Amino acid sequence: MLKVGILGAGRIAGVHATAISSHPESQLVAVSDVFPENAEKLAMKFGAEARATEDIIADKGIDAVLIATSTDTHSDLIEAATAAGKAVLCEKPVDLSLERARACQASTFATGKPVMIGFNRRFDPNFSALKAGLNAGEIGKAELLSITSFDPAPPPIAYIKVSGGLFRDMMIHDFDMANFIMGDAPVSVTAAASSIVSSEIGAAGDVDTAVVTLTYADGRLAVIKNSRRAVYGYDQRVELLGSEGLLQAQNMLENTVVKSTTQGVTGAKPTYFFLERYMPAYAAEWSAFVTAVTGCAPVPVTLADGVAALVMAEAATRSAKTGNPVRLADV
Amino acid sequence: MLKVGILGAGRIAGVHATAISSHPESQLVAVSDVFPENAEKLAMKFGAEARATEDIIADKGIDAVLIATSTDTHSDLIEAATAAGKAVLCEKPVDLSLERARACQASTFATGKPVMIGFNRRFDPNFSALKAGLNAGEIGKAELLSITSFDPAPPPIAYIKVSGGLFRDMMIHDFDMANFIMGDAPVSVTAAASSIVSSEIGAAGDVDTAVVTLTYADGRLAVIKNSRRAVYGYDQRVELLGSEGLLQAQNMLENTVVKSTTQGVTGAKPTYFFLERYMPAYAAEWSAFVTAVTGCAPVPVTLADGVAALVMAEAATRSAKTGNPVRLADV
Amino acid sequence: MLKVGILGAGRIAGVHATAISSHPESQLVAVSDVFPENAEKLAMKFGAEARATEDIIADKGIDAVLIATSTDTHSDLIEAATAAGKAVLCEKPVDLSLERARACQASTFATGKPVMIGFNRRFDPNFSALKAGLNAGEIGKAELLSITSFDPAPPPIAYIKVSGGLFRDMMIHDFDMANFIMGDAPVSVTAAASSIVSSEIGAAGDVDTAVVTLTYADGRLAVIKNSRRAVYGYDQRVELLGSEGLLQAQNMLENTVVKSTTQGVTGAKPTYFFLERYMPAYAAEWSAFVTAVTGCAPVPVTLADGVAALVMAEAATRSAKTGNPVRLADV
Amino acid sequence: MLKVGILGAGRIAGVHATAISSHPESQLVAVSDVFPENAEKLAMKFGAEARATEDIIADKGIDAVLIATSTDTHSDLIEAATAAGKAVLCEKPVDLSLERARACQASTFATGKPVMIGFNRRFDPNFSALKAGLNAGEIGKAELLSITSFDPAPPPIAYIKVSGGLFRDMMIHDFDMANFIMGDAPVSVTAAASSIVSSEIGAAGDVDTAVVTLTYADGRLAVIKNSRRAVYGYDQRVELLGSEGLLQAQNMLENTVVKSTTQGVTGAKPTYFFLERYMPAYAAEWSAFVTAVTGCAPVPVTLADGVAALVMAEAATRSAKTGNPVRLADV
Repeated sequence: MLKVGILGAGRIAGVHATAISSHPESQLVAVSDVFPENAEKLAMKFGAEARATEDIIADKGIDAVLIATSTDTHSDLIEAATAAGKAVLCEKPVDLSLERARACQASTFATGKPVMIGFNRRFDPNFSALKAGLNAGEIGKAELLSITSFDPAPPPIAYIKVSGGLFRDMMIHDFDMANFIMGDAPVSVTAAASSIVSSEIGAAGDVDTAVVTLTYADGRLAVIKNSRRAVYGYDQRVELLGSEGLLQAQNMLENTVVKSTTQGVTGAKPTYFFLERYMPAYAAEWSAFVTAVTGCAPVPVTLADGVAALVMAEAATRSAKTGNPVRLADV
Repeated sequence: MLKVGILGAGRIAGVHATAISSHPESQLVAVSDVFPENAEKLAMKFGAEARATEDIIADKGIDAVLIATSTDTHSDLIEAATAAGKAVLCEKPVDLSLERARACQASTFATGKPVMIGFNRRFDPNFSALKAGLNAGEIGKAELLSITSFDPAPPPIAYIKVSGGLFRDMMIHDFDMANFIMGDAPVSVTAAASSIVSSEIGAAGDVDTAVVTLTYADGRLAVIKNSRRAVYGYDQRVELLGSEGLLQAQNMLENTVVKSTTQGVTGAKPTYFFLERYMPAYAAEWSAFVTAVTGCAPVPVTLADGVAALVMAEAATRSAKTGNPVRLADV
Repeated sequence: MLKVGILGAGRIAGVHATAISSHPESQLVAVSDVFPENAEKLAMKFGAEARATEDIIADKGIDAVLIATSTDTHSDLIEAATAAGKAVLCEKPVDLSLERARACQASTFATGKPVMIGFNRRFDPNFSALKAGLNAGEIGKAELLSITSFDPAPPPIAYIKVSGGLFRDMMIHDFDMANFIMGDAPVSVTAAASSIVSSEIGAAGDVDTAVVTLTYADGRLAVIKNSRRAVYGYDQRVELLGSEGLLQAQNMLENTVVKSTTQGVTGAKPTYFFLERYMPAYAAEWSAFVTAVTGCAPVPVTLADGVAALVMAEAATRSAKTGNPVRLADV
Repeated sequence: MLKVGILGAGRIAGVHATAISSHPESQLVAVSDVFPENAEKLAMKFGAEARATEDIIADKGIDAVLIATSTDTHSDLIEAATAAGKAVLCEKPVDLSLERARACQASTFATGKPVMIGFNRRFDPNFSALKAGLNAGEIGKAELLSITSFDPAPPPIAYIKVSGGLFRDMMIHDFDMANFIMGDAPVSVTAAASSIVSSEIGAAGDVDTAVVTLTYADGRLAVIKNSRRAVYGYDQRVELLGSEGLLQAQNMLENTVVKSTTQGVTGAKPTYFFLERYMPAYAAEWSAFVTAVTGCAPVPVTLADGVAALVMAEAATRSAKTGNPVRLADV
């Protein structure tokens, strides 16, 4: 039985707590938060203990920590936890600073402890089925990948300002998805972006709509589309053209009811937000982590994967300024 | 906090135990089973106690029981539990004997305790959205209802022999669905049925494929199709034609991936069995029960509803012998 | 080059005229109508001649006639045309009187001339693909057939009064479809019907909504649903459950545009009426007729097929009065 | 009645001949071709005359010509025909040389005769419905456009070599579609492309897979994806995200049959090639031309539109070499 502590007791920590408790081989034993009452509340619901972060990390009886704190603390906590001999599952991104993330990767590597980055979308049943289909040769060799990833509504401007920008905050998921599907990093990243959804976002120095093209050494291409606003819901689709066919992972809908009237044939909208869409993914992610930590498999999303996505976000951020391609080798 | 005991520790009891534990206002405290080790196993997983059925019913500290035992014990346990002052959620059907079910209904009514029958499909998000659409006037007045309900594969012959027959065992869900959607009982039931899937089922005196037509006093019509075998999965669809449109609740699929090759455009199959399809329905069913018991709402599926479906099953069983309509008033 | 005359110059005659002219091996040479100016108009548009019906039938230079006159003249014209040595394609139904249709079948048979009945739906690309899939063994052995056939709006009451009733006028297409798909006639027909759409239709002695169940000697079942009103368009679907799968022929839509907004995900309606839906079917039907007449294949829909559908309509009409099954052998 | 001559008697000329003959207000009177026997054959089928190109252009009795000859003759023929007072519908592209196309535009403008360019996709019922939805305000203001345009299989290398390259030969349709939907030209074009489908195509100096990003002055973005090979058929989709929703025009399928087996749920493939997909578009295109020429409406796709698409193709061809954006103002 894997004894687990959660660092950070916000909304996503609650999702992880459920996954940990439901898993037959893991048990939630401790929770910490900068606001102790939040930790208390979450701990009580799942029969765990609210403690200080340092205590959890120092506790020899705890095998693994799940880091769900604010992004600026990720690298420090990864280093501290691995140094204390713990396995780590850390929410994305590793860090907003590529330099800091790389340093964390280097120091952590030395400990030999498993560190997994929480790119939950890899565990979505739809995207993982698409990847499995590719691996099974169902569409031959991959040629052209398209990722559509639209949020239902922009976050508050206060969040935008500290987010690191659309490429590091939002598209980073899609960069990781591209790496997951293509099994390789691109050689160049080209971004076109604007703030057409919200002039406030533009005034804050960020963009809200972007198209990013990735080129690969062997001629493959990928394109990622992001928008901060799709009023009909969380639009999350992946489409891969191969030499022998096409694979598409489409949206999950709120229900399967279809209404036909004089107005047309109307079905339900996509599930509205990431918690609904990705709930099964969080459970599968945790299960994969337990499997890796208990020794049966390599960590499926490594710290190196987290850094790789960050490099692409950095390249896209630079490219968006000029429109010219940025080579990953130059980042 | 509603203290709950589960009677019967089989597969479906496990589903209910999860729903009870996850609900913020209910707690699983006791489990019984004819095989005590089954009760032990389930109880332990959810922090409850394995006890004898009589003890659970007699325990004043337990507010409600969920009856998930074999069908032939349902009526007795409903009577005993309500007599002991407990609220009851009982798996369908009430009883294979219509006479016994009616007696149970009469004696239970006297206690005034809430009894809910586990017609879980009413709580399926798709079927309940269809019903909500009808209630909201989206398709005007209902005229013609179609229910398609196919199992992926026939059960063992041993089960068939004690099941009460397709109409009481399988189509009873669809009879309740018709009552739920139409908001009224039909006046006549006409059945055509055969054992084309399995001659063994025929030899056991049962049918495996059936079409049942329901007529209503105001001219509405309904048709229910059942098959014990749909090799592609659990096929559960409802379609309602109204004066101003059509509502269809379609199947839930294993995932949303679509593959296009020279062979065609292929999507995932329907979820394979009832546990996958109706998992959200079981949680919603439990939630509705807690709401009813804690006083905020009437029981959404009553013992009378359970008897009504049984009457239709009885009528269909008789009609299948001659092909002639059977009036419900004559059952 | 097959020289063709059309008898009757109404709306459907125009559809046939286009098919005849577009076919590389047939030519429209003459048109007749009870209103000569209608014949003139149609003939002119396609470079043909307006003539009297008798003249067309008597003309040795005309190889085939297409009968698109009112139903009560079909049998007489089939007999006259075949007696004059012509191949015939006659619109459905053969006759409203089963007796007359049978007499026509007998007398025509003696001539040895090819007579095809215009059950155009057999040539719909969707239904014929379903049939081809069944024949190819894609779903094993047929078990349970469902036909949904809804008109967008009821015809005028004046039409209803002379139509022969829903079973002979509308469901006759579906009876033929059942025979086409199942490759065999049923043993019994059971009908439930009402006039819930329009009390005027009821007052005229007809029904507007019906469910008919067919049983087959080997245990197969079929169900046909008809409604005179589906406000969203012409709803024409066939669904066949087999031992190894399900085949569904779905509606054709006006276009493929899908709109996602806060109101849901909306696509186009089914094509609104039979001319739009079945336009490709009429061309394929004519092509099959030409192939049969020019000697390469048997007539794909015979006069016997026309009579068989009429027998089922007669049985359904009788059954609708009592709800009891009517055996085809008794009609 | 518009008297029409067709210049060029290849495959596409046959499609146009059908549209011209079927239209109530136009008549095909003459056909020319570099191989007179081709002209003879097409003319005979539609009751027209085979003549020399010069004769057709000189004939005062002919009102309009449809130019379906090889691309290198388009500009000359447009100029000659308009100079002779004829209305012109010319197949795309205007010319492979942007300079020549611009000269043609200038000289033709002087004649005042209507010239329409055959961008048939604007008349596809799906794409035109999408555009109508946008114009009707169904999704608010356009923000992000995606065009997917894949051919089923690459053309012969001999064709590739004289095609002008993927951007001028294939993506030119999509550039025009972008202009049609967005109602405006972009400010910059950025291309990424490779020859991953066929090394022969690469050896011929062309690409077979491309992603092109368009930026607009007001912050809108568009992305076009092309591949010369989608083995499942002709993949032609358009998707537009707006401030209040999403519009998608999806593929047309060969039929509506869906098969559910243990292997999954399989529907038909997209129609395989442009003649099947765009047949209704050609008829609608011709109808729009007749309407414009007979004076009721402006030409819906002008020579200026043809030049605009060519400018974008030129920009994309340049951009594909460096990956850097090319400003349209610099072409």
